[in-house]
Amino acid sequence: MLLRVLSPPRPGDYIAGVVDAPPTYGETSPMTTYNAPLKDMQFVLNDVLQISKYSNLPGFADAPEDIVEAILEEGAKLAGNVLHPINQSGDKEGCTRHEDGSVTTPKGFKEAYAAYREGGWQGLSFDPEYGGQGLPYILAVAVGEMMSAANMAFGMYPGLARGAADAIHAHGTDEQKQKYLPNMIAGEWGGTMNLTESHCGTDLGLLRTKAIPQGDGSYKITGTKIFISAGEQDLTDNIIHLVLARIEGAPEGVKGISLFIVPKFLINDDGSLGARNGASCGSIEEKMGIHANSTCVMNYDDATGYLLGDEHKGLRAMFTMMNEARLGVGMQGMAISEVAYQNGAAYAKDRLQGRGLTGPVEPEKPADPIIVHPDVRRMLMDHRAFTEGARGWMYWSALHGDLQHKSEDEATRQKSEDYMGLMTPILKSYLTDKGYAHATNAQQVLGGHGYITEWGMDQFVRDARITMLYEGTNGIQALDLVGRKLMKDGGRAWQTYFAEIDEFIKDNQDNEDLKPFLDGLGNVKEQTLEATQWMGANAMKDFNNAGAGSADYLSLFALTCLAYSWAMQAKAAIEKKDSGDDFYKNKLLTGQYFLDRMLPDAGMHLAKLKTGAKSMMALPAEAF
Amino acid sequence: MLLRVLSPPRPGDYIAGVVDAPPTYGETSPMTTYNAPLKDMQFVLNDVLQISKYSNLPGFADAPEDIVEAILEEGAKLAGNVLHPINQSGDKEGCTRHEDGSVTTPKGFKEAYAAYREGGWQGLSFDPEYGGQGLPYILAVAVGEMMSAANMAFGMYPGLARGAADAIHAHGTDEQKQKYLPNMIAGEWGGTMNLTESHCGTDLGLLRTKAIPQGDGSYKITGTKIFISAGEQDLTDNIIHLVLARIEGAPEGVKGISLFIVPKFLINDDGSLGARNGASCGSIEEKMGIHANSTCVMNYDDATGYLLGDEHKGLRAMFTMMNEARLGVGMQGMAISEVAYQNGAAYAKDRLQGRGLTGPVEPEKPADPIIVHPDVRRMLMDHRAFTEGARGWMYWSALHGDLQHKSEDEATRQKSEDYMGLMTPILKSYLTDKGYAHATNAQQVLGGHGYITEWGMDQFVRDARITMLYEGTNGIQALDLVGRKLMKDGGRAWQTYFAEIDEFIKDNQDNEDLKPFLDGLGNVKEQTLEATQWMGANAMKDFNNAGAGSADYLSLFALTCLAYSWAMQAKAAIEKKDSGDDFYKNKLLTGQYFLDRMLPDAGMHLAKLKTGAKSMMALPAEAF
Repeated sequence: MLLRVLSPPRPGDYIAGVVDAPPTYGETSPMTTYNAPLKDMQFVLNDVLQISKYSNLPGFADAPEDIVEAILEEGAKLAGNVLHPINQSGDKEGCTRHEDGSVTTPKGFKEAYAAYREGGWQGLSFDPEYGGQGLPYILAVAVGEMMSAANMAFGMYPGLARGAADAIHAHGTDEQKQKYLPNMIAGEWGGTMNLTESHCGTDLGLLRTKAIPQGDGSYKITGTKIFISAGEQDLTDNIIHLVLARIEGAPEGVKGISLFIVPKFLINDDGSLGARNGASCGSIEEKMGIHANSTCVMNYDDATGYLLGDEHKGLRAMFTMMNEARLGVGMQGMAISEVAYQNGAAYAKDRLQGRGLTGPVEPEKPADPIIVHPDVRRMLMDHRAFTEGARGWMYWSALHGDLQHKSEDEATRQKSEDYMGLMTPILKSYLTDKGYAHATNAQQVLGGHGYITEWGMDQFVRDARITMLYEGTNGIQALDLVGRKLMKDGGRAWQTYFAEIDEFIKDNQDNEDLKPFLDGLGNVKEQTLEATQWMGANAMKDFNNAGAGSADYLSLFALTCLAYSWAMQAKAAIEKKDSGDDFYKNKLLTGQYFLDRMLPDAGMHLAKLKTGAKSMMALPAEAF
Repeated sequence: MLLRVLSPPRPGDYIAGVVDAPPTYGETSPMTTYNAPLKDMQFVLNDVLQISKYSNLPGFADAPEDIVEAILEEGAKLAGNVLHPINQSGDKEGCTRHEDGSVTTPKGFKEAYAAYREGGWQGLSFDPEYGGQGLPYILAVAVGEMMSAANMAFGMYPGLARGAADAIHAHGTDEQKQKYLPNMIAGEWGGTMNLTESHCGTDLGLLRTKAIPQGDGSYKITGTKIFISAGEQDLTDNIIHLVLARIEGAPEGVKGISLFIVPKFLINDDGSLGARNGASCGSIEEKMGIHANSTCVMNYDDATGYLLGDEHKGLRAMFTMMNEARLGVGMQGMAISEVAYQNGAAYAKDRLQGRGLTGPVEPEKPADPIIVHPDVRRMLMDHRAFTEGARGWMYWSALHGDLQHKSEDEATRQKSEDYMGLMTPILKSYLTDKGYAHATNAQQVLGGHGYITEWGMDQFVRDARITMLYEGTNGIQALDLVGRKLMKDGGRAWQTYFAEIDEFIKDNQDNEDLKPFLDGLGNVKEQTLEATQWMGANAMKDFNNAGAGSADYLSLFALTCLAYSWAMQAKAAIEKKDSGDDFYKNKLLTGQYFLDRMLPDAGMHLAKLKTGAKSMMALPAEAF
């Protein structure tokens, strides 16, 4: 297999004239930076999850430790040197729609996308039959973290195309796969997902876009979709839109919705691009952030479309795309937290102001750097405790994403599928809530400078804000968790997960250094179990009790996942704590901070949840 | 006394051509609205705080219940009909600096300011000797809430002028007061506060702006100040800048800083405007929000200035201004929470999507309004529990602001001064942290639409964000609380406050309906006492323990204040619960929600605080 990503073009080849010099921190012109946390990523992949143990799985044998390291290093260069330098400028310039409906992305995006495409990044973990490199999904997630941290608006263009390709791969006919996937996976063509209409977001049963069969297997699609990320752009030659619509005469509600492939340019039999289809961008939304990604109103006007999957089963097909997208959004939350942390920490070490509370720390300077202050530390340590814990949890989940599809053992595949179903809403919601909160904290570290656009910190907040809203609001995720995922198959998923935690605690009970982590994990798991039982007992009486507790329940469950992640990381760090490398010592100190300062949230969530729906639902609607 | 505010010019007189029609919620062009919560304001003023009991204080006799009602109603009209309709447009347009250094505010601001000025609002509670109306400060705070909620960026122009006038009133000579105050109080002249320089924000001891005595009592001021809100504008004929600078040869550090009056235009002996002073706007900052307020870099170039207060005691004089400003910022947090809530609630009642969890609530419609969903309720009830509680607490504090200055009883004045000192950092910090969080929640209620600028919800978030940063970051407030206010006079302030709470509980222990509120209040007060004792015992050993717990301590103390506010409100509501007015019933239901869903934060803060500084300070700075 050709590991194209190991010899990508150098940034300078592609962005000459766009980014002439590496980013610098000047006194008058600050510029944010991003350095992928390679050491922490490799620690999780190699020491904690030990992915080399999975070399029996397809793709994993092609990714021994040194290759993984090399791929991550190349990804880090692309992220830090090519994508991040156009993050602030992209936010400032935004996308431009022209009168003919075409859209121009900000300066430098075309060149950066070319670097991304030619580096082969789009096909990293995709099926080799269609030109992908077939490497582990977990590796694609690690690379995805870098892209999202470096330039979230940019990362959404290939991210959405990848999601569309996954849906075609899962539900398309052989002919459809051959027709669309090679170009999508090569990064030559983009892709989008079209669900929302102005009057229907969450409640897709209300959608009105129509599909009229033409008798030749194709359909004419007519309707207007809103909030279509990457709906039109100048990065790729073609865009493959996936569009939810209702076939004439279909049943009402969600059971009458089908999914269609609607290419921007129709494709001739020889594979060349044909006529322009009736799919166009009517306008670009002005929004709070991700300005460099075009959020389009898409008009479908007798556009030619092709059914993807079965008639009236479009939602199922769309959810293939949606579930991966939700994980991707959770990752964006964590990624933004990381890049915001890096820039907040850099400022805290640099900014001289006041003196340490116990006396001057750097008396030879006019003032101490503000990192000497506990409250500044608190914000930065909150970040680390969250982001490092979340990285371990996210990558662990991604490994189950690999196992779910690639394991030869049916029981393993089943378990991993259960875990992925359970974890998806929790990761999406908790990591984005916290990603936003931590981006806000990093901005806070800069004081007044954090509010000034030039410093770049407010962009992280504005960009992070969308992650709590799109791909299903965080409230919808919480409802998915308590309404569907918890009780599915009699609660098999969470029961298996809790049993795994119990076993981990039992297996490691003689590890004295690990004891605080095992105690913390055991406690929060018990609190989550209590909450689960409370939900089981009280949701039956009044399902509003489940809804009322859903957000707190999700956060409580997330704390169990983080505690498990931290316990696994602590175990790996303890094994290397005498290596002389401070990384492992600092890992354990950060883990202790997690136990001290994040885990106490658990009791609060449990207490709130157990008050039920009564006071929440008491007021009549007209009193609001 | 002339109650000018009771006959203000009607909006239409002043804003014809700017805002032609009242705001409407259209399908394609949503527009936010603001309706001052008059009933809740009056409930707090009349039923809870019973301000009519204070008619022995100067100014209070002029404000019986019907006059208060009339003033609030006029304020509500100004806020809702004049200021709020230019809130979104002002954000979009922003301020413009011209080549000559002049600044134009957004369209409609001049006319709106004229309405504000001519209505006499600026002098509402100011000393009648200088043209003020001498009404209670608590009334000015209530009016200020409306202005901040309706248009925060607008409200900052008169707000800063008022702060500057207060400083001159407190520290100026008779001649200075006669020279500046009448025009400032009439709204003819603006005012600013100039502290920050690019290398010094919190640590004012580092400041470099110089003042050179001219031998005639005046000084030449030279230096550059940044982040000067309202630094230049086109609303007033003159601007009275208050500028911190160091007199040539002054001691280093904070003990060598003096405060100067630096008018934009010098004032002739006959009171007319004279020469343009060397104080000019060098640029306007591009920032995350409050776009309609000009945040200026101010260049002082041999500008003529006059010492305000004593040499080298400028910080003390500036803090007169700062303390009121901090209360004002806390109020902004609460105010933004209120207006964001109103628009989130309106959307939740209007947006049809999905069905209630226990079955259709409005089966005749294609879907139920999303307010039927517990998780949407959660966000809105969180708002109410916070905002209504905070209003009671803020107005109670404002009443102590009146008592501090106006009571004839020395013990009362002392107690109120103690309370104001204690409450200022807590109100500033907690109300802005929560104001931002709740603005974010209100945006969340709108789903994807919340992210689209047109809907106006993201402006509330972006505007609210500055309140956590300016007038001292919230971390600085927490340090002020634990480092200064707590132990001042042997802890007299908090001890008196806790004793007042104990007495309230004791006095009302036979009130069965009030029991849950008294229990909640007693518990959180005990938790706060425990935290206070922990701080006392552990800060001595290592002052970093105080810093490490400062943010959690502040939040915990705030929960006690909110619980006291809710207990007082519940008591008043219980007395009227059989009045047939649902307001009182809903007040009690909202209070119960506070007990269920906000008070559990207290245990979490206490647990975190008690882990101390160890894990927070463990990492070496270079590990960040």
